[in-house]
Amino acid sequence: MALVVAKFGGSSVADADKIKRVAERIVETRRAGNEVCVVVSAMGDTTDELLELAEQVSPLPPARELDMLLTSGERISMALLAMAISNLGAEARSFTGSQAGVITDSTHGKARIIDVTPGRIRTALDEGAIAIVAGFQGVSQDTKDITTLGRGGSDTTAVALAAALHADVCEIYTDVDGVFSADPRIVPSARKIDTISYEEMMELAASGAKVLMLRCVEYARNYSVPVHVRSSFSTKPGTWVTDIPEAELVEQAIIRGVAHDSSEAKVTVVGCPDKPGVAAAVFRAVADADVNLDMIVQVGSVAGTGRTDISFTLPKTDGRTALAALEKVRGEIGFEKTLYDDHIGKVSLVGAGMKSHPGVSARFFGALADAGVNVEIISTSEIRISVVVRDTDLSGAVKAVHDAFELGDEGNQAIVYAGTGR
Amino acid sequence: MALVVAKFGGSSVADADKIKRVAERIVETRRAGNEVCVVVSAMGDTTDELLELAEQVSPLPPARELDMLLTSGERISMALLAMAISNLGAEARSFTGSQAGVITDSTHGKARIIDVTPGRIRTALDEGAIAIVAGFQGVSQDTKDITTLGRGGSDTTAVALAAALHADVCEIYTDVDGVFSADPRIVPSARKIDTISYEEMMELAASGAKVLMLRCVEYARNYSVPVHVRSSFSTKPGTWVTDIPEAELVEQAIIRGVAHDSSEAKVTVVGCPDKPGVAAAVFRAVADADVNLDMIVQVGSVAGTGRTDISFTLPKTDGRTALAALEKVRGEIGFEKTLYDDHIGKVSLVGAGMKSHPGVSARFFGALADAGVNVEIISTSEIRISVVVRDTDLSGAVKAVHDAFELGDEGNQAIVYAGTGR
Repeated sequence: MALVVAKFGGSSVADADKIKRVAERIVETRRAGNEVCVVVSAMGDTTDELLELAEQVSPLPPARELDMLLTSGERISMALLAMAISNLGAEARSFTGSQAGVITDSTHGKARIIDVTPGRIRTALDEGAIAIVAGFQGVSQDTKDITTLGRGGSDTTAVALAAALHADVCEIYTDVDGVFSADPRIVPSARKIDTISYEEMMELAASGAKVLMLRCVEYARNYSVPVHVRSSFSTKPGTWVTDIPEAELVEQAIIRGVAHDSSEAKVTVVGCPDKPGVAAAVFRAVADADVNLDMIVQVGSVAGTGRTDISFTLPKTDGRTALAALEKVRGEIGFEKTLYDDHIGKVSLVGAGMKSHPGVSARFFGALADAGVNVEIISTSEIRISVVVRDTDLSGAVKAVHDAFELGDEGNQAIVYAGTGR
Repeated sequence: MALVVAKFGGSSVADADKIKRVAERIVETRRAGNEVCVVVSAMGDTTDELLELAEQVSPLPPARELDMLLTSGERISMALLAMAISNLGAEARSFTGSQAGVITDSTHGKARIIDVTPGRIRTALDEGAIAIVAGFQGVSQDTKDITTLGRGGSDTTAVALAAALHADVCEIYTDVDGVFSADPRIVPSARKIDTISYEEMMELAASGAKVLMLRCVEYARNYSVPVHVRSSFSTKPGTWVTDIPEAELVEQAIIRGVAHDSSEAKVTVVGCPDKPGVAAAVFRAVADADVNLDMIVQVGSVAGTGRTDISFTLPKTDGRTALAALEKVRGEIGFEKTLYDDHIGKVSLVGAGMKSHPGVSARFFGALADAGVNVEIISTSEIRISVVVRDTDLSGAVKAVHDAFELGDEGNQAIVYAGTGR
């Protein structure tokens, strides 16, 4: 008997029929002799509808109340799912994030899980019931207020519960078959990856692969929770995210896949005084505005001017905030002006084999050059190379790199991988 | 500075515009220097929509899960109301029934409040915030599961909170101007009652006046909470339900008003053996099926047969259950058959002055006789006379009685009263 934590997203429970289908799948798993804890998101468009209601009453609603509002979405889906399961003759009990013991900090809208005390879930499982838990929500340790975990929060809830319950697997059900070597909408020959290490999955998630959120994979790695990303529409195995021994990694895979990201913009701070402390002052101004930078490049001093340009990328959604923060310190720092460019895209190649196999960079940049793609910024980690290109070059760049490393090749299954770009 | 608990029903918060109007009213009360705790129901049709969803996934959903589902309705309305208040520059914090300390028993769907521990509400008020509380819901003392209080539960939440907070008044906002001497849709000359005693209001509520539920008035009486029933569309005073000294009652009012009820049916158990214990057996069978009887009549033994008929009234919604329960014990008790009649109506005259003023009964039955209304069952309390009539006679009977006691008379304001028949 295994303990399975299974997470179903909003599209899997979008209406009564889909909820009944999910219920059947859960009851099958239970009747096969497993203990089952299900984490569920709000139905389909519920969250958007609630946000629209909020907008109608207030242009800038307090974050605490927005969390109170949005968490009603999972309350609806989990109760309906529990009813559908009961209707099939199995016992199900639904629990809010608070009842399930999901304890967070007090950052409304993007709270972090700081503890999970799943006593009531454990009791329900011990009594033979299927436990249904609201994803995406928790309760603040300090204020006892209801919090939400932010985007992809239900996946994190599932992994955190799996860790706290010492589950054998955390199954993430989704509308794709698993993690792919590239977004199949861009690269039709992209292949499903069978197994991937936590570190590689983290790099892909951080590079734009949307199938799993970074925080969820980090949590899984920290507690060694095996994650199985699979389709809610089929029983085929999907992608396992798990510990892969270093030796095996070196032997097996050079490259997992290619991720891309078109959600970032580039800010250039033009004409900064070329002296110590200026770059620090620029980044401090942006960080104080709570904006996370991604890639950074500083162009060497233009001869004779004593001035230099600093560029960085950031989420487009933070663009306005960052520019406003910089404008405030322009006189103090003494730069000339800022430029904002939101027509960029990022392409990333990820693979644990990269660090032990020389020549990956040469092949990567060669492929881009052959495809006529101009590279604007470069950043790397031990197992990743990322470049910023024009947004119009993005699809071409992804295809060129995917081809160059033969990731879609039938005979090369062990070295495939990467994220869907949803 | 007064502490005001104000309750707004579903029709008062049916859409974003109405929520904003309620918010303005609340902020006015706060800015006038009062501490304000607001109890709110789910928006307009939310509860019906959720019930429809439940029906789509299961014909007989578990009561625990139905409560979990339905309580999302108030979570939505209270968060939106808090946002709308914030938008007007006042501070508001919303609380679920559980967070507000509404402790109930475990009877899902019609839980009883057994304690209220409003520590978080008190703190919010002390900090100058307006507290918004979800009506209709609580948390079970034993199982810690979410419960609902059943029909009219939000009024009970408001009164219970007012009692626990030692509020100066519990304002119940509604879509009528107050409690009337009869349903104005039947009796256009019906007058708004200014003040009414708890006992009279309880009799009216039990007799079909829908403006306040019986349980809520009972609670108010037990804790001496002054209740002000008033319109959410005007600032005119409504009806005060409060302690009225006996001496004042005797002097002032003979009769408050006329209530009617068309939600009941009559069951007749035909041909019961006329011997001790038979009536008890009949009523036990019905009570064991969790059906509440209202009025009861036993027709004397028909000469020579040794048999008698027993009739009683009950909510139409319980008709099927009661008949099934009786059928099961037919052989054992030995009655012939049951008859079911759902074309009845009940008319009740209520007034504390009744007990000290003789002649009320004579006038009541005289009015019905003059109107040609046949009386089928009679029941009385110290301050109430009720009769069952044909449903086609109901409106005529209400008008006749209201006229006979001059309840709509301009010069007779002190003795008016009664419930809307919603």
